[in-house]
Amino acid sequence: MASSMLSDCSSCAASRLLPLRRAALHPPPRFRPFPAAAPPQPRPLFVAAPPLPLLPRTRSMASFSAAAAASADPATVVADAPAAKIINGKLVAEQIREEVRVEVARMKDAIGVVPGLAVILVGSRRDSQTYVRNKKNACEAVGVKSYEVNLPEDCSEDEVIKHIETFNSDPSVHGILVQLPLPSHMNDENILNAVSIEKDVDGFHPLNIGRLAMQGRDPFFVPCTPKGCMELLHRYGVEIKGKRAVVIGRSNIVGMPAALLLQKANATVSIVHSKTKNPEEITRQADIVIAAVGVANLVRGSWIKPGAAIIDVGINTVDDPARPRGYRLVGDVCYEEASKVAGAITPVPGGVGPMTIAMLLSNTLESAKRIHKFE
Amino acid sequence: MASSMLSDCSSCAASRLLPLRRAALHPPPRFRPFPAAAPPQPRPLFVAAPPLPLLPRTRSMASFSAAAAASADPATVVADAPAAKIINGKLVAEQIREEVRVEVARMKDAIGVVPGLAVILVGSRRDSQTYVRNKKNACEAVGVKSYEVNLPEDCSEDEVIKHIETFNSDPSVHGILVQLPLPSHMNDENILNAVSIEKDVDGFHPLNIGRLAMQGRDPFFVPCTPKGCMELLHRYGVEIKGKRAVVIGRSNIVGMPAALLLQKANATVSIVHSKTKNPEEITRQADIVIAAVGVANLVRGSWIKPGAAIIDVGINTVDDPARPRGYRLVGDVCYEEASKVAGAITPVPGGVGPMTIAMLLSNTLESAKRIHKFE
Repeated sequence: MASSMLSDCSSCAASRLLPLRRAALHPPPRFRPFPAAAPPQPRPLFVAAPPLPLLPRTRSMASFSAAAAASADPATVVADAPAAKIINGKLVAEQIREEVRVEVARMKDAIGVVPGLAVILVGSRRDSQTYVRNKKNACEAVGVKSYEVNLPEDCSEDEVIKHIETFNSDPSVHGILVQLPLPSHMNDENILNAVSIEKDVDGFHPLNIGRLAMQGRDPFFVPCTPKGCMELLHRYGVEIKGKRAVVIGRSNIVGMPAALLLQKANATVSIVHSKTKNPEEITRQADIVIAAVGVANLVRGSWIKPGAAIIDVGINTVDDPARPRGYRLVGDVCYEEASKVAGAITPVPGGVGPMTIAMLLSNTLESAKRIHKFE
Repeated sequence: MASSMLSDCSSCAASRLLPLRRAALHPPPRFRPFPAAAPPQPRPLFVAAPPLPLLPRTRSMASFSAAAAASADPATVVADAPAAKIINGKLVAEQIREEVRVEVARMKDAIGVVPGLAVILVGSRRDSQTYVRNKKNACEAVGVKSYEVNLPEDCSEDEVIKHIETFNSDPSVHGILVQLPLPSHMNDENILNAVSIEKDVDGFHPLNIGRLAMQGRDPFFVPCTPKGCMELLHRYGVEIKGKRAVVIGRSNIVGMPAALLLQKANATVSIVHSKTKNPEEITRQADIVIAAVGVANLVRGSWIKPGAAIIDVGINTVDDPARPRGYRLVGDVCYEEASKVAGAITPVPGGVGPMTIAMLLSNTLESAKRIHKFE
């Protein structure tokens, strides 16, 4: 009936993309959308919202996948106009790319340095090749120099590490990422740990994660997708401090770092995962929900607190014979229902997805600025 | 009226103490209290408990300190017998020390290696001197060799780091800890980062914290006090998987790593902190509460879900003219009230406090075993 897959923004491959230190790239006056760019108007959240059509339902997430996807078929949705503000990730990502482009040009003019991003691809997975090509194109569009190494599926761990070490010591490279997943004969941990902490633009190194978790410490880089989630909240004026936040999913690349970021921003954070017994009840307490679990339409309207801000990281496919490809993309949140209850919500596609590569570019720029002490 | 202070188990100095990899030191059959040692009987939690005398109260923690301490004066407490199982940290700590002693002797007999712990003390704070002396005595009692360096208050950061490096390369030293707080002219981060990750028995290195946060990774060491909290839950048979857990406080040395440990054990975790608007309401949802905030009697009976397990890390002083010293020690939890509602609770003193040094000894043993590949 419905199939669910990990996509660019929720998979390893995907979240291999974007953060930047906002303070560096976006000084406070620029946190809001550019006035000239038909900005999304921040609207106060947590205010009056239409009554929600509560669907009493309390079951564990594990049992949810297919049923959730099925019951959210568009044919069953009442055609009301959505009440929630749509958080336009495509627009924000474009703004960030433009900001990066301007900064890259300024840096080149001032000190003659061009940020460089190196991508290592092992094997010939079609999806990985697509992601790598997208990253390369995105780099070119903003003036970031990209370097690419393609290694055969059967190459050794040592060969990959040798290439990483070459990039580690190459002063024209400021960010290094290894496209995941790696072939099964390789140890991801050994390979990712070989990336210099100063060039780990993915932010996946445990040292980065530790610094993210600790008060009084700052990571060199924040993983791209969760950083993109935070950027959307910031740019749409969603208040975080003192708010209840629920993160659904606890992956190393999205859920866990997203929870740490919300915590660092002084939200009161709860993490809901596959062993949680009452995810609906807990999620309904949240002013901010970040869903990153990879289950199509898991989060129903009844899970949402009226007025809440919903960031949907999931990109899942569900069968749809009416579409030319026979499927359509949906998030972890049932958009049709949630958008009638929430105060603000990201669509899928066009929400978090476009943010990941934008934030990867920002992280690469940030790295170059830090290495060259360019303000 | 009441004063609150950080004590050995909730301060930097304190939590500079204990974890061990339970799997290594305590194979499953030994997770429960020793049958021979008049063990605390694990009792099923989350079952019928007496009705709780709810005190409607919802205010932020920031406003709580003095009022909480004052209102929990023993004179105002009804003299009912406590309903909760008392989690006897003193007894468990003694068991762990005995387990360490036996293992140290076995290791010495088998391979001739004695675990060694080095402590660096800078300056002459009385409390720090006491903590260091206690650690030294604890080492001697279980056969762990202790090394101590005392440096003057005005020594340089470089001197401290030089001593750390000497211990890093000394094969007879398996654990190194720098007693905190350090003099104000020193950068804690620089100094703590100098400790070899393989000998960081405090578990405070960001790399350790990152590995603690990540799924599929394990830290070399877990910070002593939160590890002690988990050990108490395990040894008293408190089920963690799928339970709601609330950690009150988010310090780098107790609250944050405690939350990560509970999360790793598959609890659904929420962190309550000074910016949380409704700490009482959130805490009342928890089957497990770890309070580590350093505010005397903050957590009242009304905050507790009937049958919950309460781990009280706080050690605070409140004025008490009836005592010879003019004060008494209390936790972050109002014991008199909470013990009538909870299913199990740690007292203060005699709860988490004694666990910290016990777990430091365990971590040191664990380190020596790992370095010498001794099973």
